Amino acid sequence: MTATPIIFDCDPGVDDAVALLLAFASPELELLAITTTAGNVSGTLTARNARLIRQLAGREDVPVHIGAERPLVREPVEAGAFHGESGLGALPIAEPALPVTSGDAVQAIIDIVRARPEGSVTLVVTGPMTNAALALQRAPDLAARLKAIVAMGGARSEGGNITASAEFNIFADPHAADVVCRSGVTIVAFGLDATHQVRATEARIAAIEALGNPLADAAASLLRFSREVERQVVHGLDAPLHDPCPIAWLIRPSLFELRPCRLDVETGSPLTMGHTAVEFRAPEPNAQWAVKADADGLFALLTERLA
Amino acid sequence: MTATPIIFDCDPGVDDAVALLLAFASPELELLAITTTAGNVSGTLTARNARLIRQLAGREDVPVHIGAERPLVREPVEAGAFHGESGLGALPIAEPALPVTSGDAVQAIIDIVRARPEGSVTLVVTGPMTNAALALQRAPDLAARLKAIVAMGGARSEGGNITASAEFNIFADPHAADVVCRSGVTIVAFGLDATHQVRATEARIAAIEALGNPLADAAASLLRFSREVERQVVHGLDAPLHDPCPIAWLIRPSLFELRPCRLDVETGSPLTMGHTAVEFRAPEPNAQWAVKADADGLFALLTERLA
Amino acid sequence: MTATPIIFDCDPGVDDAVALLLAFASPELELLAITTTAGNVSGTLTARNARLIRQLAGREDVPVHIGAERPLVREPVEAGAFHGESGLGALPIAEPALPVTSGDAVQAIIDIVRARPEGSVTLVVTGPMTNAALALQRAPDLAARLKAIVAMGGARSEGGNITASAEFNIFADPHAADVVCRSGVTIVAFGLDATHQVRATEARIAAIEALGNPLADAAASLLRFSREVERQVVHGLDAPLHDPCPIAWLIRPSLFELRPCRLDVETGSPLTMGHTAVEFRAPEPNAQWAVKADADGLFALLTERLA
Amino acid sequence: MTATPIIFDCDPGVDDAVALLLAFASPELELLAITTTAGNVSGTLTARNARLIRQLAGREDVPVHIGAERPLVREPVEAGAFHGESGLGALPIAEPALPVTSGDAVQAIIDIVRARPEGSVTLVVTGPMTNAALALQRAPDLAARLKAIVAMGGARSEGGNITASAEFNIFADPHAADVVCRSGVTIVAFGLDATHQVRATEARIAAIEALGNPLADAAASLLRFSREVERQVVHGLDAPLHDPCPIAWLIRPSLFELRPCRLDVETGSPLTMGHTAVEFRAPEPNAQWAVKADADGLFALLTERLA
Ligand SMILES: [Ca+2]
Ligand SMILES: [Ca+2]
Ligand SMILES: [Ca+2]
Ligand SMILES: [Ca+2]
Repeated sequence: MTATPIIFDCDPGVDDAVALLLAFASPELELLAITTTAGNVSGTLTARNARLIRQLAGREDVPVHIGAERPLVREPVEAGAFHGESGLGALPIAEPALPVTSGDAVQAIIDIVRARPEGSVTLVVTGPMTNAALALQRAPDLAARLKAIVAMGGARSEGGNITASAEFNIFADPHAADVVCRSGVTIVAFGLDATHQVRATEARIAAIEALGNPLADAAASLLRFSREVERQVVHGLDAPLHDPCPIAWLIRPSLFELRPCRLDVETGSPLTMGHTAVEFRAPEPNAQWAVKADADGLFALLTERLA
Repeated sequence: MTATPIIFDCDPGVDDAVALLLAFASPELELLAITTTAGNVSGTLTARNARLIRQLAGREDVPVHIGAERPLVREPVEAGAFHGESGLGALPIAEPALPVTSGDAVQAIIDIVRARPEGSVTLVVTGPMTNAALALQRAPDLAARLKAIVAMGGARSEGGNITASAEFNIFADPHAADVVCRSGVTIVAFGLDATHQVRATEARIAAIEALGNPLADAAASLLRFSREVERQVVHGLDAPLHDPCPIAWLIRPSLFELRPCRLDVETGSPLTMGHTAVEFRAPEPNAQWAVKADADGLFALLTERLA
Repeated sequence: MTATPIIFDCDPGVDDAVALLLAFASPELELLAITTTAGNVSGTLTARNARLIRQLAGREDVPVHIGAERPLVREPVEAGAFHGESGLGALPIAEPALPVTSGDAVQAIIDIVRARPEGSVTLVVTGPMTNAALALQRAPDLAARLKAIVAMGGARSEGGNITASAEFNIFADPHAADVVCRSGVTIVAFGLDATHQVRATEARIAAIEALGNPLADAAASLLRFSREVERQVVHGLDAPLHDPCPIAWLIRPSLFELRPCRLDVETGSPLTMGHTAVEFRAPEPNAQWAVKADADGLFALLTERLA
Repeated sequence: MTATPIIFDCDPGVDDAVALLLAFASPELELLAITTTAGNVSGTLTARNARLIRQLAGREDVPVHIGAERPLVREPVEAGAFHGESGLGALPIAEPALPVTSGDAVQAIIDIVRARPEGSVTLVVTGPMTNAALALQRAPDLAARLKAIVAMGGARSEGGNITASAEFNIFADPHAADVVCRSGVTIVAFGLDATHQVRATEARIAAIEALGNPLADAAASLLRFSREVERQVVHGLDAPLHDPCPIAWLIRPSLFELRPCRLDVETGSPLTMGHTAVEFRAPEPNAQWAVKADADGLFALLTERLA
């Protein structure tokens, strides 16, 4: 089996960081590049955090390109409360040894995809879709050249988290998500409907911690931070594990149940801005929508890889 | 215990008809009037159907006032496919003996509410909210005079039924629902989240049919029609029982679990028109939102009352 | 020549009052009824003011029906600053001798139009279109039965007055205007493009005042109040004469130049709410739009009739 | 006097071409670069046309950078009918000798502005604002570094040209215009209100043609093409001269009268998409809006420079 070549576009972010750790540890994935965007915290911080996690994993072979500092059209929305001031919860922060790779994220995405065989590269997006949209705007041929965009974002049965009807990643740049949805690219979306089924319980965190190695320690620290915030700030439930879902699906698709749908994004109305309209009855689907997740299986995978 | 005085505003509609049968048979409710609106089928048909069910139940003491023939602002949307050409599925149709009561539905609602003690009358709405909105527009004092508006409409975790993000009753007149939501009236809403939990299985229909009386026969016929349509046209599931939910709640509140929320309706965007934004985290709720329904309990109630 | 039968729906309002004085004094018009709506000031005050002007003109033969107290959907917007606390500027206010006629304005409009030959009655609207929309919603046959709706409202080349892109009457109830525009009724619209060409200069006011009779005095007082407000509050120009325009056109069409257009109203966006999209290039016009007004001719008419 | 350094972002387009000829011939302007965008015709054609006009003017010293091929968010809208298949009307077309300069337009704008003293460079935009918005999105510091964005676009008193309420350049990329308006950059806007005052009459074209040199011949050919299209396709008037207006203003500001305003762009509603809301009464203006143009003076300037 050959590894799946991916570009990982993210805004770390505690759950992006766990997703990065999972990706770094998985031979099923060939990590061509990490590209970062502003989102959970500022663009400078997300690029720093990506380098930090890269360094922690000893994977400085993977380039990190810094990308969009602002959403395509709307004013920036940040989510610091859920990720701590640094974006990485309680993880110790130091300036990473290596800088970002030269070349902006958007051009890097375009160049990498164009340099590889058509239909081979998957773009994973676990933050706002700004870089993806800018790449598709600058190079519309990417829609056909990409194998898929596999993203964390949106909500149907779970309503929303940042507003009643919108999930954070899509709300943070609804116009970018709209560009992606209308681009013709194949989309696989892991929204709150799936990610809310994957909760970091104390037992699951403890199992990772018990591995007793630096990467597992980091993952446990990130998960525990999320869990504390979720339990205090939100509603007493264990924290959902958002961003590792698309990575886990690429490694082990059987962990999820997907349904084809027409996916559209609200960009016109203040009340529902960033809402994802997920129409399962559409004659011409443009996306696969995750409706079920195997939480035990996903944590088992994570624990196994961090061992 | 004194009966709860209600005005029942509906658009029969097979499930409105079942709800009417339940209401007629329940001493906990004092049925002050039935008011009808265009919705599932035209306004003329819904008024005819309300009178037909009234006659079937031998309750010609309850006046039927005909109301809005069109939504407040948008073009009419009908749902004939789900209710048959007559609006009552396969039920035999004949012109009822008694005509509608004079006086339009909107003025009837206003007059009845004003004639009763403040805070005593409940307005049940199981169709588009056109009559309710027109009453509140014409008589803003109704918002404080009504005990509550108890309605079937909207969706959160169930997305939508007429579009990806909107439920039929709200979609059919989103501006009316918006007027109701902003009026200050107390709202209790039974959206798809609750009604999709209450399915008319063959066993449940058979139990009603086994009662062997004309009202039970009619209810069984209506339910079976819905079930057939749902299984063929939609997605192979048993039909949800929408409109009886608010009536059942008034009779036996323990059948449902409600959560306070801020309820807002999308009226500006074509994509999400009629979407209900249900915000459980709002500091100033304007509604109670049904999140759980006891389907067995509800069918037990229905069967008991039709006996 | 037979007189043109009109229903005059208004929200007096200083310029509505001038328009009423002109209508009362013009044998070309048969005033079937005055119907009032909330708008410039509250609904109670506009109905009072209509009766006051009626009494001043000695025309208690014309019924005054009170109508909508609130817009169809949106929250009320008032314009007191431009019309004084009473709505009639500096005119002395006393409770009129006669009350409003029984029967609400909306039903009165419907009943009068239905009682007359099809295509004979013109509905003049010089306030928000709430009553007109409610009548068309309640009785869609009115769209074909009315000869036309002749209204003051909207703006194209003049942008807007209440916001950058919207005129007050349409902004105050954009959903009502939208209902009227989509109803199929023939519309003749006098927006700011025309009414801003008709300015109450001191010379023109003085010419009316010089007539030296009570009606002329009242008209001069109303016009002078408008002129003062306009010069102080707005931008130093003489006050435009809005509401008399549709009445003047009915009496003497040659005072205006109209162009056929497709007229649509924005109801979805906060920025442009109430904007009138006037498309002269539309293949199927639904309206006539006033583009030019003969200000001298209009004031000559007004002065002649008040003599 | 030192020349004003400008970057000229355009989508030639016949009137862009005339504007380029005027700019090339005017010592008051230092042309740092030409950047092109898709708009009137495709991005490949507009870049080709810019090089063609550059070659005609013997100004191959000025770099031409190719920019956005698509709007920021919406689907492309073209205006071929008004500019001919080539985008340059009836002008003979040949592949220019020199290619585009390497480096995309957006980065070129950023690099040039950052390399010059703060507040010195003016960005002229005579097409959709896509490149400007992308530059501001990628480098938010440009909003303060630019002296101004001087643009052709929008409409207030002239309504619209592509729709009832929107002008082509803004309609073609409303989200880009919205980004520019909210960026904090100083805006000087020449919308249809001004450009419709500047008409290419036969006499004015003849005066240019009479100069009898290749540049004047080209300009006359472009203007005559526009005039023919306008007279046949639109409404029998002489063609308005849109894009030369901002260039003429930079050379000779006295040709125009500007008013400060708050400029906002509609991006949410299909009916009014791309409408410019021009609010002269705003306490904090973000733009200067051209309300008057001296057509004779502008054509005199053009004729003088092409001599
Ligand atoms: Ca993330
Ligand atoms: Ca119903
Ligand atoms: Ca008025
Ligand atoms: Ca142009």
